[in-house]
Amino acid sequence: MALKLYGLPMSTCTTRAMACLHEKGVDFELVPVQLFGGEHKHPPFLAKNPFGQVPVLEDGDLTLFESRAITSYVAEKFKETGTDLVRHGNLKEAALVKVWMEVESHHFNGAISPIVHEYLVAPLLGKTPDQAVIDAASEKLGKVLDVYESKLSSTKYLAGDFFSLADLHHHAYTFYLMRTPWASMVNDRPNVKAWWEDISSRPATKKVAEGMTFGEKK
Amino acid sequence: MALKLYGLPMSTCTTRAMACLHEKGVDFELVPVQLFGGEHKHPPFLAKNPFGQVPVLEDGDLTLFESRAITSYVAEKFKETGTDLVRHGNLKEAALVKVWMEVESHHFNGAISPIVHEYLVAPLLGKTPDQAVIDAASEKLGKVLDVYESKLSSTKYLAGDFFSLADLHHHAYTFYLMRTPWASMVNDRPNVKAWWEDISSRPATKKVAEGMTFGEKK
Repeated sequence: MALKLYGLPMSTCTTRAMACLHEKGVDFELVPVQLFGGEHKHPPFLAKNPFGQVPVLEDGDLTLFESRAITSYVAEKFKETGTDLVRHGNLKEAALVKVWMEVESHHFNGAISPIVHEYLVAPLLGKTPDQAVIDAASEKLGKVLDVYESKLSSTKYLAGDFFSLADLHHHAYTFYLMRTPWASMVNDRPNVKAWWEDISSRPATKKVAEGMTFGEKK
Repeated sequence: MALKLYGLPMSTCTTRAMACLHEKGVDFELVPVQLFGGEHKHPPFLAKNPFGQVPVLEDGDLTLFESRAITSYVAEKFKETGTDLVRHGNLKEAALVKVWMEVESHHFNGAISPIVHEYLVAPLLGKTPDQAVIDAASEKLGKVLDVYESKLSSTKYLAGDFFSLADLHHHAYTFYLMRTPWASMVNDRPNVKAWWEDISSRPATKKVAEGMTFGEKK
Protein backbone atom coordinates (compact mmCIF):
# COMPACT_ATOMS: atom_id res chain seq x y z
CA MET A 1 0.00 0.00 0.00
CA ALA A 2 1.39 3.35 -1.04
CA LEU A 3 1.97 6.06 1.52
CA LYS A 4 -0.69 8.77 1.71
CA LEU A 5 0.41 12.36 2.18
CA TYR A 6 -2.34 14.85 3.04
CA GLY A 7 -1.53 18.38 2.01
CA LEU A 8 -1.25 20.81 -0.86
CA PRO A 9 1.56 21.16 -3.44
CA MET A 10 1.85 24.91 -2.77
CA SER A 11 2.18 24.51 1.03
CA THR A 12 5.69 24.95 2.38
CA CYS A 13 5.38 22.18 4.94
CA THR A 14 3.78 19.76 2.47
CA THR A 15 6.58 20.29 -0.04
CA ARG A 16 9.15 19.71 2.71
CA ALA A 17 7.78 16.19 3.09
CA MET A 18 7.32 15.71 -0.67
CA ALA A 19 10.90 16.69 -1.47
CA CYS A 20 12.10 14.07 1.00
CA LEU A 21 9.87 11.37 -0.53
CA HIS A 22 11.22 12.26 -3.98
CA GLU A 23 14.84 12.14 -2.75
CA LYS A 24 14.17 8.62 -1.46
CA GLY A 25 12.32 7.60 -4.63
CA VAL A 26 9.31 6.52 -2.59
CA ASP A 27 5.86 6.31 -4.20
CA PHE A 28 3.10 8.17 -2.44
CA GLU A 29 -0.39 9.45 -3.07
CA LEU A 30 -0.93 13.16 -2.44
CA VAL A 31 -4.39 13.65 -0.94
CA PRO A 32 -5.48 17.28 -1.33
CA VAL A 33 -6.75 19.14 1.75
CA GLN A 34 -8.86 22.21 1.08
CA LEU A 35 -7.02 24.70 3.28
CA PHE A 36 -8.90 27.71 1.94
CA GLY A 37 -12.17 25.95 2.75
CA GLY A 38 -10.95 25.18 6.29
CA GLU A 39 -11.05 21.39 5.86
CA HIS A 40 -7.98 21.04 8.12
CA LYS A 41 -9.87 22.58 11.06
CA HIS A 42 -12.76 20.08 10.98
CA PRO A 43 -13.06 16.85 13.00
CA PRO A 44 -12.14 14.28 10.29
CA PHE A 45 -8.79 16.00 9.70
CA LEU A 46 -8.26 16.92 13.36
CA ALA A 47 -8.45 13.19 14.11
CA LYS A 48 -5.29 12.83 12.01
CA ASN A 49 -3.56 15.95 13.35
CA PRO A 50 -5.05 17.63 16.44
CA PHE A 51 -3.19 20.84 15.54
CA GLY A 52 -5.10 21.06 12.25
CA GLN A 53 -2.13 21.49 9.95
CA VAL A 54 -0.78 19.85 6.82
CA PRO A 55 1.01 17.65 6.03
CA VAL A 56 -0.08 14.36 7.53
CA LEU A 57 1.49 11.08 6.46
CA GLU A 58 -0.36 7.78 6.67
CA ASP A 59 1.69 4.62 6.36
CA GLY A 60 -0.70 1.73 6.98
CA ASP A 61 -1.97 2.17 10.54
CA LEU A 62 0.66 4.77 11.43
CA THR A 63 -0.38 8.43 11.24
CA LEU A 64 2.31 11.10 11.53
CA PHE A 65 2.21 14.89 11.47
CA GLU A 66 4.80 17.69 11.69
CA SER A 67 6.72 17.83 8.41
CA ARG A 68 10.16 17.44 10.00
CA ALA A 69 9.09 14.32 11.88
CA ILE A 70 7.72 12.92 8.61
CA THR A 71 11.01 13.53 6.77
CA SER A 72 13.00 11.92 9.59
CA TYR A 73 10.72 8.85 9.49
CA VAL A 74 10.93 8.54 5.70
CA ALA A 75 14.73 8.96 5.76
CA GLU A 76 14.98 6.21 8.37
CA LYS A 77 12.41 3.75 6.99
CA PHE A 78 13.76 3.90 3.45
CA LYS A 79 17.41 3.99 4.41
CA GLU A 80 18.37 1.55 1.66
CA THR A 81 17.04 3.64 -1.25
CA GLY A 82 17.77 7.07 -2.70
CA THR A 83 19.86 9.77 -1.08
CA ASP A 84 21.20 9.15 2.44
CA LEU A 85 19.68 12.21 4.13
CA VAL A 86 20.67 11.53 7.75
CA ARG A 87 24.15 9.89 7.48
CA HIS A 88 23.26 6.39 8.56
CA GLY A 89 25.94 4.65 10.53
CA ASN A 90 28.07 7.77 11.00
CA LEU A 91 27.25 9.01 14.49
CA LYS A 92 29.21 12.27 14.23
CA GLU A 93 27.90 13.31 10.82
CA ALA A 94 24.38 12.30 11.87
CA ALA A 95 24.76 14.53 14.95
CA LEU A 96 25.81 17.49 12.79
CA VAL A 97 22.78 16.93 10.56
CA LYS A 98 20.62 17.16 13.70
CA VAL A 99 22.36 20.37 14.81
CA TRP A 100 21.58 22.13 11.53
CA MET A 101 18.05 20.71 11.41
CA GLU A 102 17.52 22.37 14.79
CA VAL A 103 19.06 25.59 13.50
CA GLU A 104 16.49 25.58 10.69
CA SER A 105 13.69 24.99 13.21
CA HIS A 106 14.76 27.48 15.86
CA HIS A 107 16.55 30.24 13.96
CA PHE A 108 15.78 30.18 10.23
CA ASN A 109 12.10 29.21 10.12
CA GLY A 110 10.88 31.86 12.54
CA ALA A 111 12.80 34.56 10.68
CA ILE A 112 11.90 33.72 7.08
CA SER A 113 8.29 32.60 7.42
CA PRO A 114 6.82 36.01 8.40
CA ILE A 115 8.32 37.57 5.26
CA VAL A 116 6.78 34.92 3.01
CA HIS A 117 3.45 34.99 4.81
CA GLU A 118 3.13 38.77 4.82
CA TYR A 119 4.28 39.30 1.26
CA LEU A 120 2.82 36.30 -0.59
CA VAL A 121 0.08 34.78 1.56
CA ALA A 122 -1.58 37.78 3.31
CA PRO A 123 -2.72 39.34 -0.01
CA LEU A 124 -4.45 36.06 -0.94
CA LEU A 125 -6.44 36.38 2.28
CA GLY A 126 -7.39 39.97 1.46
CA LYS A 127 -4.91 41.44 3.94
CA THR A 128 -2.27 44.12 3.49
CA PRO A 129 1.29 42.99 4.26
CA ASP A 130 2.54 44.38 7.59
CA GLN A 131 5.81 46.10 6.78
CA ALA A 132 6.88 46.29 10.44
CA VAL A 133 6.61 42.49 10.69
CA ILE A 134 8.64 42.08 7.50
CA ASP A 135 11.30 44.52 8.70
CA ALA A 136 11.76 42.76 12.06
CA ALA A 137 11.88 39.35 10.39
CA SER A 138 14.35 40.41 7.72
CA GLU A 139 16.68 41.79 10.37
CA LYS A 140 16.60 38.43 12.16
CA LEU A 141 16.99 36.51 8.91
CA GLY A 142 20.03 38.57 7.96
CA LYS A 143 21.81 37.54 11.15
CA VAL A 144 21.00 33.88 10.53
CA LEU A 145 22.19 34.07 6.92
CA ASP A 146 25.43 35.71 8.07
CA VAL A 147 26.15 32.58 10.11
CA TYR A 148 25.26 30.41 7.10
CA GLU A 149 27.53 32.47 4.83
CA SER A 150 30.44 31.83 7.16
CA LYS A 151 29.63 28.12 7.63
CA LEU A 152 29.21 27.57 3.89
CA SER A 153 32.68 29.02 3.28
CA SER A 154 34.14 25.88 4.88
CA THR A 155 31.65 23.15 3.91
CA LYS A 156 29.53 22.72 0.77
CA TYR A 157 26.34 22.05 2.71
CA LEU A 158 25.23 23.05 6.21
CA ALA A 159 26.17 19.90 8.11
CA GLY A 160 29.28 19.08 6.05
CA ASP A 161 30.23 18.22 2.48
CA PHE A 162 27.08 16.18 1.98
CA PHE A 163 23.46 17.07 1.21
CA SER A 164 21.13 16.15 4.07
CA LEU A 165 17.74 16.85 5.64
CA ALA A 166 19.36 19.93 7.19
CA ASP A 167 19.58 21.46 3.70
CA LEU A 168 16.34 19.99 2.37
CA HIS A 169 14.30 21.50 5.19
CA HIS A 170 15.35 24.98 4.02
CA HIS A 171 14.05 24.58 0.48
CA ALA A 172 10.37 25.46 0.83
CA TYR A 173 10.59 28.87 2.45
CA THR A 174 13.71 29.91 0.57
CA PHE A 175 11.97 29.05 -2.71
CA TYR A 176 9.22 31.51 -1.88
CA LEU A 177 11.60 34.14 -0.47
CA MET A 178 13.25 34.18 -3.90
CA ARG A 179 9.93 35.45 -5.31
CA THR A 180 9.99 38.50 -3.04
CA PRO A 181 12.15 41.66 -3.00
CA TRP A 182 14.09 39.98 -0.13
CA ALA A 183 15.66 37.50 -2.56
CA SER A 184 18.61 39.87 -2.37
CA MET A 185 19.32 38.53 1.13
CA VAL A 186 20.35 35.27 -0.54
CA ASN A 187 21.82 36.73 -3.71
CA ASP A 188 24.07 39.19 -1.84
CA ARG A 189 25.79 36.37 0.07
CA PRO A 190 27.92 34.38 -2.41
CA ASN A 191 28.18 31.16 -0.40
CA VAL A 192 24.50 31.16 0.51
CA LYS A 193 23.64 31.88 -3.14
CA ALA A 194 25.78 28.97 -4.41
CA TRP A 195 24.25 26.66 -1.79
CA TRP A 196 20.74 27.77 -2.74
CA GLU A 197 21.42 27.23 -6.45
CA ASP A 198 22.73 23.76 -5.67
CA ILE A 199 19.90 22.57 -3.45
CA SER A 200 17.19 24.10 -5.63
CA SER A 201 18.48 22.40 -8.78
CA ARG A 202 18.21 18.84 -7.47
CA PRO A 203 15.62 16.69 -9.28
CA ALA A 204 13.57 16.33 -6.07
CA THR A 205 13.37 20.05 -5.32
CA LYS A 206 12.76 20.94 -8.97
CA LYS A 207 9.86 18.51 -8.96
CA VAL A 208 8.15 20.03 -5.92
CA ALA A 209 8.82 23.56 -7.22
CA GLU A 210 6.42 22.87 -10.10
CA GLY A 211 3.49 22.99 -7.69
CA MET A 212 4.68 25.93 -5.57
CA THR A 213 2.45 28.63 -7.04
CA PHE A 214 2.10 31.25 -4.29
CA GLY A 215 3.17 34.57 -5.73
CA GLU A 216 3.19 33.32 -9.30
CA LYS A 217 2.37 35.90 -11.90
CA LYS A 218 -1.04 35.13 -13.36
CA MET B 1 37.58 11.73 28.38
CA ALA B 2 34.36 12.96 29.95
CA LEU B 3 31.91 14.99 27.91
CA LYS B 4 32.00 18.75 28.45
CA LEU B 5 28.74 20.65 28.59
CA TYR B 6 29.00 24.44 28.44
CA GLY B 7 26.08 26.21 30.07
CA LEU B 8 24.44 27.20 33.31
CA PRO B 9 22.34 25.07 35.67
CA MET B 10 19.54 27.65 35.71
CA SER B 11 19.30 27.87 31.89
CA THR B 12 16.32 26.05 30.39
CA CYS B 13 18.23 24.78 27.37
CA THR B 14 21.23 23.68 29.45
CA THR B 15 19.01 21.68 31.79
CA ARG B 16 17.31 20.05 28.80
CA ALA B 17 20.68 18.55 27.85
CA MET B 18 21.62 17.80 31.49
CA ALA B 19 18.40 15.91 32.19
CA CYS B 20 19.11 13.71 29.19
CA LEU B 21 22.68 13.01 30.33
CA HIS B 22 21.36 12.07 33.79
CA GLU B 23 18.71 9.77 32.27
CA LYS B 24 21.48 7.98 30.39
CA GLY B 25 23.77 7.89 33.44
CA VAL B 26 26.56 9.55 31.47
CA ASP B 27 29.34 11.43 33.27
CA PHE B 28 29.96 14.96 32.12
CA GLU B 29 31.69 18.11 33.23
CA LEU B 30 29.51 21.25 33.37
CA VAL B 31 31.60 24.22 32.25
CA PRO B 32 29.97 27.47 33.42
CA VAL B 33 29.39 30.23 30.86
CA GLN B 34 28.88 33.72 32.26
CA LEU B 35 25.70 34.67 30.43
CA PHE B 36 25.13 37.81 32.47
CA GLY B 37 28.67 38.92 31.58
CA GLY B 38 28.03 38.25 27.89
CA GLU B 39 30.70 35.53 27.59
CA HIS B 40 28.53 33.63 25.08
CA LYS B 41 28.66 36.57 22.64
CA HIS B 42 32.47 36.73 22.46
CA PRO B 43 34.72 35.03 19.89
CA PRO B 44 35.98 32.07 21.98
CA PHE B 45 32.43 30.91 22.63
CA LEU B 46 31.15 31.90 19.18
CA ALA B 47 33.74 29.51 17.75
CA LYS B 48 31.85 26.74 19.50
CA ASN B 49 28.36 28.03 18.64
CA PRO B 50 28.08 30.81 16.05
CA PHE B 51 24.61 31.67 17.39
CA GLY B 52 26.10 32.49 20.80
CA GLN B 53 23.82 30.34 22.92
CA VAL B 54 24.18 27.67 25.56
CA PRO B 55 24.41 24.74 25.77
CA VAL B 56 27.34 23.41 23.76
CA LEU B 57 28.49 19.81 24.07
CA GLU B 58 32.06 18.77 23.39
CA ASP B 59 32.74 15.08 22.93
CA GLY B 60 36.39 14.77 21.96
CA ASP B 61 36.77 16.62 18.64
CA LEU B 62 33.02 16.85 18.08
CA THR B 63 31.30 20.12 19.02
CA LEU B 64 27.50 20.26 19.06
CA PHE B 65 25.01 22.99 19.84
CA GLU B 66 21.21 23.27 19.97
CA SER B 67 19.94 21.44 23.05
CA ARG B 68 17.57 19.15 21.15
CA ALA B 69 20.34 18.01 18.80
CA ILE B 70 22.52 17.31 21.84
CA THR B 71 19.85 15.17 23.51
CA SER B 72 19.28 13.22 20.30
CA TYR B 73 23.03 12.57 19.98
CA VAL B 74 23.37 11.49 23.61
CA ALA B 75 20.31 9.21 23.34
CA GLU B 76 21.80 7.58 20.24
CA LYS B 77 25.44 7.32 21.32
CA PHE B 78 24.62 5.84 24.72
CA LYS B 79 21.81 3.62 23.52
CA GLU B 80 22.99 0.71 25.68
CA THR B 81 22.75 2.54 29.01
CA GLY B 82 20.00 4.20 31.04
CA THR B 83 16.51 5.02 29.81
CA ASP B 84 15.69 4.34 26.14
CA LEU B 85 14.62 7.85 25.18
CA VAL B 86 14.07 7.39 21.44
CA ARG B 87 12.65 3.83 21.14
CA HIS B 88 15.61 2.16 19.48
CA GLY B 89 14.67 -0.52 17.02
CA ASN B 90 10.97 0.33 16.98
CA LEU B 91 10.46 2.43 13.86
CA LYS B 92 6.84 3.36 14.60
CA GLU B 93 7.35 4.35 18.22
CA ALA B 94 10.53 6.23 17.28
CA ALA B 95 8.51 8.13 14.67
CA LEU B 96 5.89 9.10 17.27
CA VAL B 97 8.65 10.34 19.56
CA LYS B 98 9.84 12.56 16.70
CA VAL B 99 6.30 13.87 16.09
CA TRP B 100 5.93 15.02 19.69
CA MET B 101 9.48 16.39 19.81
CA GLU B 102 8.50 18.56 16.86
CA VAL B 103 5.28 19.56 18.62
CA GLU B 104 7.37 20.76 21.55
CA SER B 105 9.62 22.72 19.19
CA HIS B 106 6.95 24.26 16.97
CA HIS B 107 3.91 24.65 19.24
CA PHE B 108 4.81 24.42 22.92
CA ASN B 109 8.16 26.21 23.14
CA GLY B 110 7.07 29.39 21.37
CA ALA B 111 3.97 29.63 23.55
CA ILE B 112 5.48 28.95 26.98
CA SER B 113 8.84 30.68 26.71
CA PRO B 114 7.53 34.28 26.52
CA ILE B 115 5.61 33.76 29.77
CA VAL B 116 8.71 32.51 31.59
CA HIS B 117 10.95 35.17 30.09
CA GLU B 118 8.61 38.06 30.83
CA TYR B 119 7.68 36.96 34.33
CA LEU B 120 10.92 35.48 35.68
CA VAL B 121 13.80 36.68 33.50
CA ALA B 122 12.85 40.25 32.49
CA PRO B 123 12.86 41.51 36.12
CA LEU B 124 16.42 40.18 36.54
CA LEU B 125 17.41 42.38 33.60
CA GLY B 126 15.72 45.41 35.17
CA LYS B 127 12.72 45.25 32.82
CA THR B 128 9.01 45.25 33.59
CA PRO B 129 7.11 42.20 32.32
CA ASP B 130 5.03 42.98 29.24
CA GLN B 131 1.52 41.82 30.10
CA ALA B 132 0.35 41.93 26.47
CA VAL B 133 3.10 39.46 25.52
CA ILE B 134 2.14 37.19 28.40
CA ASP B 135 -1.56 37.34 27.48
CA ALA B 136 -0.95 36.43 23.84
CA ALA B 137 1.41 33.61 24.82
CA SER B 138 -0.90 32.15 27.45
CA GLU B 139 -3.75 32.06 24.95
CA LYS B 140 -1.55 30.08 22.56
CA LEU B 141 -0.29 27.84 25.35
CA GLY B 142 -3.84 27.07 26.44
CA LYS B 143 -4.68 25.72 22.99
CA VAL B 144 -1.55 23.56 22.95
CA LEU B 145 -2.28 22.20 26.43
CA ASP B 146 -5.86 21.39 25.37
CA VAL B 147 -4.39 19.07 22.73
CA TYR B 148 -2.05 17.56 25.33
CA GLU B 149 -4.94 17.05 27.77
CA SER B 150 -6.80 15.06 25.16
CA LYS B 151 -3.73 13.07 24.05
CA LEU B 152 -2.78 12.26 27.63
CA SER B 153 -6.24 10.82 28.24
CA SER B 154 -5.32 7.91 25.96
CA THR B 155 -1.56 7.49 26.58
CA LYS B 156 0.51 8.01 29.72
CA TYR B 157 3.17 10.06 27.94
CA LEU B 158 3.04 12.18 24.80
CA ALA B 159 4.36 9.68 22.27
CA GLY B 160 2.79 6.60 23.90
CA ASP B 161 2.93 4.65 27.15
CA PHE B 162 6.67 5.26 27.50
CA PHE B 163 8.76 8.20 28.70
CA SER B 164 10.87 9.67 25.89
CA LEU B 165 12.75 12.75 24.74
CA ALA B 166 9.36 14.14 23.70
CA ASP B 167 8.43 14.42 27.38
CA LEU B 168 11.89 15.31 28.65
CA HIS B 169 12.15 18.31 26.32
CA HIS B 170 9.12 19.84 28.06
CA HIS B 171 10.60 19.76 31.55
CA ALA B 172 12.67 22.94 31.66
CA TYR B 173 10.06 25.54 30.69
CA THR B 174 7.21 23.79 32.49
CA PHE B 175 9.32 23.73 35.67
CA TYR B 176 9.61 27.50 35.54
CA LEU B 177 5.97 28.02 34.48
CA MET B 178 5.00 26.28 37.72
CA ARG B 179 6.65 29.17 39.58
CA THR B 180 4.38 31.72 37.95
CA PRO B 181 0.66 32.49 38.32
CA TRP B 182 0.15 30.54 35.06
CA ALA B 183 0.87 27.25 36.85
CA SER B 184 -2.91 26.96 36.90
CA MET B 185 -2.77 26.20 33.17
CA VAL B 186 -1.18 22.87 34.10
CA ASN B 187 -3.02 22.31 37.38
CA ASP B 188 -6.46 22.90 35.84
CA ARG B 189 -5.95 20.10 33.29
CA PRO B 190 -5.98 16.76 35.19
CA ASN B 191 -4.13 14.69 32.59
CA VAL B 192 -1.50 17.35 31.97
CA LYS B 193 -1.10 17.74 35.74
CA ALA B 194 -0.59 13.99 36.27
CA TRP B 195 1.90 13.89 33.40
CA TRP B 196 3.79 16.88 34.79
CA GLU B 197 3.94 15.32 38.28
CA ASP B 198 5.26 12.13 36.74
CA ILE B 199 7.98 13.63 34.56
CA SER B 200 9.09 16.13 37.20
CA SER B 201 9.53 13.44 39.85
CA ARG B 202 12.04 11.34 37.91
CA PRO B 203 15.53 11.24 39.48
CA ALA B 204 17.05 12.97 36.43
CA THR B 205 14.60 15.89 36.42
CA LYS B 206 14.72 16.24 40.21
CA LYS B 207 18.49 16.49 39.94
CA VAL B 208 18.48 19.31 37.39
CA ALA B 209 15.69 21.10 39.28
CA GLU B 210 18.14 21.70 42.16
CA GLY B 211 20.01 24.24 40.04
CA MET B 212 16.99 25.93 38.45
CA THR B 213 16.89 29.06 40.55
CA PHE B 214 15.16 31.69 38.39
CA GLY B 215 12.22 33.03 40.36
CA GLU B 216 13.30 31.44 43.62
CA LYS B 217 12.30 33.30 46.73
CA LYS B 218 15.37 34.84 48.32
